[in-house]
Parts: sequence; C-alpha cells; structure tokens
Amino acid sequence: MLSKESFREISPADFFYRNRDIAGFSNPSRAVYSTIREILENSLDACEIGGFPPDILIKLETLEYTPSGTQILKITAIDNGTGVPHKYVPQAFGQVFFGSKYVLRQSRGTFGLGGKMAYLYGQITTHTPLHVITGYHGKVHEYLLRIDIQRNQPIILKESFVKRSKWHGVLLEFNLEGNYRLASAKILEYLKETAMVTPYANITFIDPDGRLIRFYRVTREMPTPPRETLPHPHGVDVEGLRRLISTSNAKDMKTFLTTSFHRIGPATANSFLSWASKIMKKHNLKKLNPKKLTHEELVMLARCLHSYDGFLLPDASCLSPIGPQLLKKGIQKELKPEFVEAIARKPSAYSGHPFIVEAAIAYGGNIPPGIKLYRFANRIPLLYDESSDVSWKVVFQLINWKYYKIDPNNDPVAVAIHIASTKIPYKTVGKEFIADRPEIEREILNAVRELTRKLSRFIAKREKIKYQSKRFNVFKKYLPVMVKYAALTVNRPIPDISKLLKRSPINDEET
Amino acid sequence: MLSKESFREISPADFFYRNRDIAGFSNPSRAVYSTIREILENSLDACEIGGFPPDILIKLETLEYTPSGTQILKITAIDNGTGVPHKYVPQAFGQVFFGSKYVLRQSRGTFGLGGKMAYLYGQITTHTPLHVITGYHGKVHEYLLRIDIQRNQPIILKESFVKRSKWHGVLLEFNLEGNYRLASAKILEYLKETAMVTPYANITFIDPDGRLIRFYRVTREMPTPPRETLPHPHGVDVEGLRRLISTSNAKDMKTFLTTSFHRIGPATANSFLSWASKIMKKHNLKKLNPKKLTHEELVMLARCLHSYDGFLLPDASCLSPIGPQLLKKGIQKELKPEFVEAIARKPSAYSGHPFIVEAAIAYGGNIPPGIKLYRFANRIPLLYDESSDVSWKVVFQLINWKYYKIDPNNDPVAVAIHIASTKIPYKTVGKEFIADRPEIEREILNAVRELTRKLSRFIAKREKIKYQSKRFNVFKKYLPVMVKYAALTVNRPIPDISKLLKRSPINDEET
Repeated sequence: MLSKESFREISPADFFYRNRDIAGFSNPSRAVYSTIREILENSLDACEIGGFPPDILIKLETLEYTPSGTQILKITAIDNGTGVPHKYVPQAFGQVFFGSKYVLRQSRGTFGLGGKMAYLYGQITTHTPLHVITGYHGKVHEYLLRIDIQRNQPIILKESFVKRSKWHGVLLEFNLEGNYRLASAKILEYLKETAMVTPYANITFIDPDGRLIRFYRVTREMPTPPRETLPHPHGVDVEGLRRLISTSNAKDMKTFLTTSFHRIGPATANSFLSWASKIMKKHNLKKLNPKKLTHEELVMLARCLHSYDGFLLPDASCLSPIGPQLLKKGIQKELKPEFVEAIARKPSAYSGHPFIVEAAIAYGGNIPPGIKLYRFANRIPLLYDESSDVSWKVVFQLINWKYYKIDPNNDPVAVAIHIASTKIPYKTVGKEFIADRPEIEREILNAVRELTRKLSRFIAKREKIKYQSKRFNVFKKYLPVMVKYAALTVNRPIPDISKLLKRSPINDEET
Repeated sequence: MLSKESFREISPADFFYRNRDIAGFSNPSRAVYSTIREILENSLDACEIGGFPPDILIKLETLEYTPSGTQILKITAIDNGTGVPHKYVPQAFGQVFFGSKYVLRQSRGTFGLGGKMAYLYGQITTHTPLHVITGYHGKVHEYLLRIDIQRNQPIILKESFVKRSKWHGVLLEFNLEGNYRLASAKILEYLKETAMVTPYANITFIDPDGRLIRFYRVTREMPTPPRETLPHPHGVDVEGLRRLISTSNAKDMKTFLTTSFHRIGPATANSFLSWASKIMKKHNLKKLNPKKLTHEELVMLARCLHSYDGFLLPDASCLSPIGPQLLKKGIQKELKPEFVEAIARKPSAYSGHPFIVEAAIAYGGNIPPGIKLYRFANRIPLLYDESSDVSWKVVFQLINWKYYKIDPNNDPVAVAIHIASTKIPYKTVGKEFIADRPEIEREILNAVRELTRKLSRFIAKREKIKYQSKRFNVFKKYLPVMVKYAALTVNRPIPDISKLLKRSPINDEET
C-alpha cells in the first residue's frame, strides 16, 4: 500500500478561508466581534496616518434570523481617514496579502489581513458583495466587489466615479452571518477600552436593536503620526540583506549601509566595516560593491550586522506612544478612580524593532475589587487569551502585590499596559496576545513596579489619614467633656476649645 | 496632509517570512524546537498513511558558533514513509500553500506549512539550500532546492535520478541557525510525549553533543490509517457549496447531494429536499440542476443544509484514534504509575467535523505531586500556551478535584487528553492550543469526570486498605498480650492465635 496522497496548491485567500479559526473567525459570535474590531482598527489607522481626529460610525442591522439561531447582519462603517486611491480599491479590499501594512511603521494592522477576512467571511456566509465608497484627493469613487477565493483576486461588479468632493474617508457596507447577542458584551468592552486609549476619537456604534453607544473625544490633541523607518542592522537576516542589496543603487558598502539602514551614519559605517573586515578576513570591505558579495559573504555580513555592539539602539521617534497624560485622561474618563498614575518607559528594542512601554495604575472609583488588567498594543485593546500574554505574566506572576501592602483579591486596582512598536510580536493572526520577549517583559516589569510603589504610598497615606481622622473623632467627642470636668475640678472657667476642634489633623498634614 | 501609504502585494512565503512568530519561529530556540517538531510530524504522517510502522531518525550537528551565542546547526532527518512523487518534490518542499494536507482527513499537519517554514527559516538564517532524497514507487530521486521567497516558488539547483530501489521514504538535510541549549528540555519533553502516543514507532534522536536518545516501539500494531472523507452537510458554507456544485457532474439535486456529501443517502436526500422545498418555496428541488441555482437560492440551500436535523452525525470511521489500550501502554511505559485507566468517548461532531476524545488518568509512580496535564491532538503533544487550551479549562477550572477526594496540589496525578479529528480547531498556525468549542469541551469534561471517579475509587480503596492494615498491626501487637492475661486471669492455658494473626484482613477483603 503506497501513497494515497493528493498534492495541490491553494491560494492565500483559500488558506484563510479554510483556517478561519486562526484569524479570529471561529464561530458566528467571534466573527461579529472580529469584524467590528478589524474595521474599527483600519479606520483609526487611516485617520491617524492622515492626522485627522477620527470620527467613526459603525452600524449593525439585522436583516433576518436564520433557522440555526444566528442573524444575517448588515454592517455599515464610515470613517474620515485618508481614503484609498481608487486604482488600489479592488485589490486593497479583495485580495489577501495586498495592502499598505507591509512597511516598518507602527500601526494597528500588522498582517494586512483582518479587514479582508471580514469581507471574506461575509461573502462565504451570505454570498453578497462588498460595497465600498471612498473619497481620496478630491474625488469620490464607488465599487461593488466580490473575492474570487480560489484565485485570490477581486471581481469588480461595479466601478464608478461619483463626484468631486472634499470628503475623504471610506464607507463600507456588507452582510455577514453572526450572533450579535453572544458577542455584544465583548464588543462593548472592546469599544470602551478603545475609547480609553484614543481619547481624541469620536466613536459611534449603533447595535442591531437600534441602541446608540457613543464615545466622545475629550481632546483634539492627536499623537504624532507614526513614520515609516529603515530596518535596524540588529534585526536584519540574510534574506532581508539580500533584498536590500538588490534594490539599492549603492556602488560601495559604505554608501549601502548608510542609505539602507536605520542608525548607521558614516562614522558608524566606517568603524563597523573595519571590524567586519577583520572577522570576514576581507581587505577592502568599504569599497566593495555589495552586489558582488558571494553567498557565504552575505551570510557572514548578516551575522556581523547582528552581533556588532557599536550600533545605537533603534530610534523611537518613528513610534507614536499614547503619552502618560492621554493615558491618564482616558482612564479617568472611563473608570473615575480615586487615584491614577501613568508613566512611559524609555524606548527600548528587541531584534532591531524599537518599542515603548507605557503603563498606568488606578485605584477605587468604578473599579471592582481585585486586580483588573487592561492590555493594549499599538492602541488596540487585547481581550482574549489574557493568560498567555506577557503582561499577564508580569502582573499576576512576577509582581508580589503583598510586598506593596496591596491585597490582590480585594483591593480595587486597575493596571493598563500599552506597548507601541513598529512590530508587535503577536503570537496569533487574530492579534490576541503578545509573546514574552525578554526585553519587553523587563520593561513592563519595571513600569509596573514603579507604579505599584506609587500606589502603595497613596494607600499608606490614605490609611494614615483614616486612622488620624478616626482618632480625631474620638477627641472631638471626649475632649469637651474632659475639659469641662478639669475646669470644674480646679474651679476655673471652661476654656473655649471649639476653634481647636475645627482644625482637622488632615488639614494640618496637608498644609 | 493626505495619505503617505504605499500599497503592495506580497507572496504567501513572504507573509510567513515577515511574520514567523505566528508559525512558532520567534527566536533561535523556538526555531529549533519547531523545526524538529514539524519534521517529525510530517514523517509520522507519511508513515501512517502508508501503514508502515515508523522508523525515524533525526540528527543535529553543530557546524559553528556565531558571535551572538547561537549555533549553525545541520539537521538530517530520515523516515520510512510513503515518500513523495518526484514531480511534486520541488513544490512540496519549496512552495508555501502547496501540499497534500488540503483534504478532509485526520493528520498531524493541517496547514501544509510547518515543514516549509523550517526550510525557509534555515534559508533565511544560513542561506544554504535544502537537500532532499526520496524513494517512491521503486525509484530514488535527489534534489537540491532553494525557495524564491518573493515569488513563492522553488528554485531547483539540482535534480537527478539516483537508482531503482525498494526503499521508500524521505531524507532531508539543511542548515539553520538556532539555540539548541535553550530548546533541549522542550525537545526532549516533546519526543517523550510523542513516544507516549505512538508506541508503534521507533524514534531516534541524536543531539548536537552526540548523545543518542532512542524511543523503542512496544508494539507493531498500528492504528487504522485515517481516510479522506466528504464534507458533512452541517459544516458546509455558501462558498463550499458553490465549489462542490462547480466540480460535480450531477444533473439533479438528489444525485448531487448523495455524491457530494458525507451521510446523505437517497432516503435522507429525499426527505431533506422535500423539507427544503417548502422553506425555499420551490416546487421541484429534487429534479433541479444544481448549476442553475441563483445566488439567493444557493445561500438558502446552504442555510437549510446547516440547520436540517435529519442528518446523521458525521461517521468517525474516517478517524484514527489511539485507542484506550495503546494510550495506557504508552503511559505505563513512560510514567510507570501505580494506577492507570483510559477511556474513549463516543464519536461526536462540531460544525460538521467528526471528532473523538480519548483520555487517561494515572496516579503515583514517576508522577510528581500535583496535577500534570498532557495534551494531544491527532497524536501531537501540545506543549506551549497550556492555559489557553480547552483541556486546561476542563482540568483546572471545571473539575472540582476536592469533590473526588483528590488534593490537586499534592496528589501525584497525570491526566492525558487526546482529540482526534479531521479538523482540529487550533487557534494558532503554530498548533499550540485548541479553541474551546462547546461540543469538544463537553466531551472532554465527561471523559475526565468518568476517569476521576475511577481514580477516586482506587484511592478510597487504597486508603481503606492502609487503615485496616494499620488497625491489624495494632491487634497484632496487643492481642497476644491480652490473650495471655485473659487466660491467666481465668486460669486456662494460653490459646495459640498465631494462625489468626497470619491472615491479613486485606487478603480477607480480596478473597
């Protein structure tokens, strides 16, 4: 008995159609959640890249109920982002692995996949096309698209120029089968947490029952838009190096290094090349045409770039963190705590990718007892698979809360952690949790420790005030009586101590 | 300021090259682990599909140490599987999304991706080609391949016919950069657990220090090889239905249903079609040519297939479970417990995919205190991200161990859970954990409950025996003395009770 195996090729669209679990579309309720999430994230990215304070509307309507208990939902989404150049619309919305996310820049989307998975899911469950209207550079175009899943190509059903207009942005409309009822709690939590880290956005959501949920912006101050950056030499591999060489016009290694890499100026290039020349046993690396490197030399050069310790760390100016002020504002708005503190760590790097950790801690107010962890990555709230995430490890395994006199089961504490990077090391295409890269773990741990100390001081102070005000209340009750009897005993007039009793020890402490 | 976005297309190989974290290749240590794992799984699949008791050798050699602390490893792997038809070799080893895993059949591989990720990782870190020798249908061929990542195509450096031979199987050889030291513990654990569920395989591993680790088969009895199956009507979506219709030669709906679906015979087809005719308000659904269905009818038909409750559950004869006997044998061999019990649940289904849950519980022996969970899916051990897995949820959150008089922190208990299915709902491409589909969760819960009751009875009995033998020891000590004084008091000779004391109450109990 020999092979009964049949070999075949499938397209990328087909791959994700067959394996939608890995992209977060496992069932009708997850599908609604993931759809809303991917569309909102794409819209926020499109607004921020253009510097427009986001105004986003997402609306769900029930078209019909199916016999299996799900609904056919119509989703309409409108944003005021940059819009999409009309020649790219069919591919950008109807071809997997085509998009604008394949550059080194901080963005919510990293895989260029989520939006398309949503339209694809809509198509395979309802067989209806995707309706796109986009305003870009003064012109509005309209499209009706379908995806040819087996060939991974868009099918254009309608394509027309609508009018000239200043409006920029995207309007999307499509149907999908889903279960809103089971998804609604997660969706509302997702919107709430998104609002927490994008306090400059107006987000409006209308649910299938017609309820309007609106998150208003509390500021028009936008974070600086993220910029595209060159690769850092510590993060390049042989394949990446080969590609850089093949697209570079440089005729010698020094020019190649200074024009193709982040953080390599002429001086660094010189010292790196003399170091590498020794290791590679080459006399003239500086003048060498990079296109003339042999396979073996390419491998050695990549290894040298990896391990040379004279390069500066990646520059984080291409990142767009939230900033401690905005983070605090967002938390105050949503949780109304008694105490909130936020910090940003210094930029750091892993495998050549710059990143920044920001964190906040809050106490009391609307926070329920116990520690609640909010996780964010490039301003996306992460809600699923919490216990596999690096932040969970730090907050629930590495931090000893009792040491800080905080009871992790009863004290109302919220911890928010935000990681901004040109490349978030997600472990799933569904962007649910972040790998525990040691560099990232260390930064989170330091941030949480610093904040926990601050919270600990706040709680200690509050306890002290509580104790003193209790003691003062005892005095207030018995002091007048004691004074009276003391005065009577020695036959002197009763002194007026009312002024004394008005001065609270708490005020004393604070002045 | 308008868009600065640049749109581009990338190939599937490029996508996974850029996002290797999601396929389990995040760092040099994970890369070695994932490489060995993917190669071993492909080899086991190739042996089982052909019905050959596996003989697999994997060897690692250190070629050199890099300045950054990693090693350049050479990996050699040989199996006695079915081999690969030579015309498919270049694509099967050098093109992402090409393979033999894209059918409905139980296999370890599901994404047709892992092996290629390993060669791709080897290529991008060492820039060396992949060497393949395969014996298939009496002929041995040799190849030297490289992957053109940007175009997702194999580059054939060498292709030759070696000789005629009866040998079948695959020999692979390639280099990769890795960190074996950090990966070794997980690799050994992975091999040990694999041996536990494939007691019919000889697996030999030679580590970079030349240590030989060998797992011998304890049986030549192989599980029945899994078979390819037709889709079940409950699992089909509109896109799937459209494809089935386009490849079917059937001229009427009845023939189409009976030839394209699993579990639809003529009688079921008739009753389904009369039911669906009513819902779809069509008079003549039975005689209709499926190719003439409109878009709307296609959608309605898919929904009817989904929700009709007259179809039998998927037939699990296409599955290849381990079987409770083999599972017990594997556990006895590796853990040497005092007590072990295994069961297989009845076949069940989720979204049209058949699955079987098998489970085992063991106590004492080499098991350390506390509950140790072993997770398997289609005979793969799952080692990472345990706490996101459905089995973890059952064992550590849903089962109340104290109710069964088992101390989850101190009793030495091992639980093994195996899920066999034509489609395991993994949540990552790296195949680390399984989604908590309610149907699967329920089956696991029932299996673990049944086993826990059995273990509980074993422990109770052991406790009873312990108690009685303790009581008996007390008797043994004081009874002769009491008998002696009693006899003296009443002035009678001391009776001989030595016979009585030789009969242990435990033997009494058991006879």
